[in-house]
Amino acid sequence: MFDDLILRPAVENDLPEIVRLLCEDELGATRESFSNPLLPCYYEAFQEITEDKNQILLVVESQNKILGTCHLTFMPSLSFKGSKRLNIENIHVQKLVQGQGVGTLMIQKAIELGQEKGCKLIQLTTNKKRVRAKGFYEKLGFKASHEGMKLYLHQG
Amino acid sequence: MFDDLILRPAVENDLPEIVRLLCEDELGATRESFSNPLLPCYYEAFQEITEDKNQILLVVESQNKILGTCHLTFMPSLSFKGSKRLNIENIHVQKLVQGQGVGTLMIQKAIELGQEKGCKLIQLTTNKKRVRAKGFYEKLGFKASHEGMKLYLHQG
Repeated sequence: MFDDLILRPAVENDLPEIVRLLCEDELGATRESFSNPLLPCYYEAFQEITEDKNQILLVVESQNKILGTCHLTFMPSLSFKGSKRLNIENIHVQKLVQGQGVGTLMIQKAIELGQEKGCKLIQLTTNKKRVRAKGFYEKLGFKASHEGMKLYLHQG
Repeated sequence: MFDDLILRPAVENDLPEIVRLLCEDELGATRESFSNPLLPCYYEAFQEITEDKNQILLVVESQNKILGTCHLTFMPSLSFKGSKRLNIENIHVQKLVQGQGVGTLMIQKAIELGQEKGCKLIQLTTNKKRVRAKGFYEKLGFKASHEGMKLYLHQG
């Protein structure tokens, strides 16, 4: 376990390390592209995220290295008597440090922020191919009560 | 099947009928509250939704009656090379008219809007208790590739 983990919002200079982390993942490797310099599309997306008060891109670092990231979206909603919900996407922890509390720290922070903002629930989806992930989230209190359905769009 | 369905963004005057629709649902019945006048929390949530350019609350109507609703959220994202995704929540169709194309019309519109906005994927979760819903979304091209995990927050 680490005793020097820092959890903070990402800044633009973190982007290369974040994208490298996404590429390290077996599913991310087929989707992302790490290059130096990084593709402009990543900077454009980062700008959209940081300009929106309902988005928070978090990173966990230790000794100036990015060990994990996740993306929080606060969503207004009519349901549950007009309660907000917090959606988490893109939760990644560096392979070498998995199981050492980085993911737990991020989810605990998400819970804290969700409570602060009056969210009724936190939701995320995890690919069924990630066999250990479901148990990880269940340990943190999540229930796999829903099917997570995805439809990939082809641009016309 | 209807030949006069109108699909449009919701306006404030639709709110009582939308909330009545949410209450009609077996899960919604335990969560929502329909009253006349409607609880202010619903109006507050509606205002937050309409003020945010990334949110669209849709309704389907026929002969001045609301038959269905769903809530679209466009989410910026780093993943898939900085591609947006479209999240759909709160998809409801009036019980009496289920299976008559109202839900399909809403999902088709979501796909069209997602493509217009350059989204890479559309996602939604459906409660595993809703036994027929998964097949409905699969027919429209969705794959149940993910677990949909939820954590309900208790306000401190």
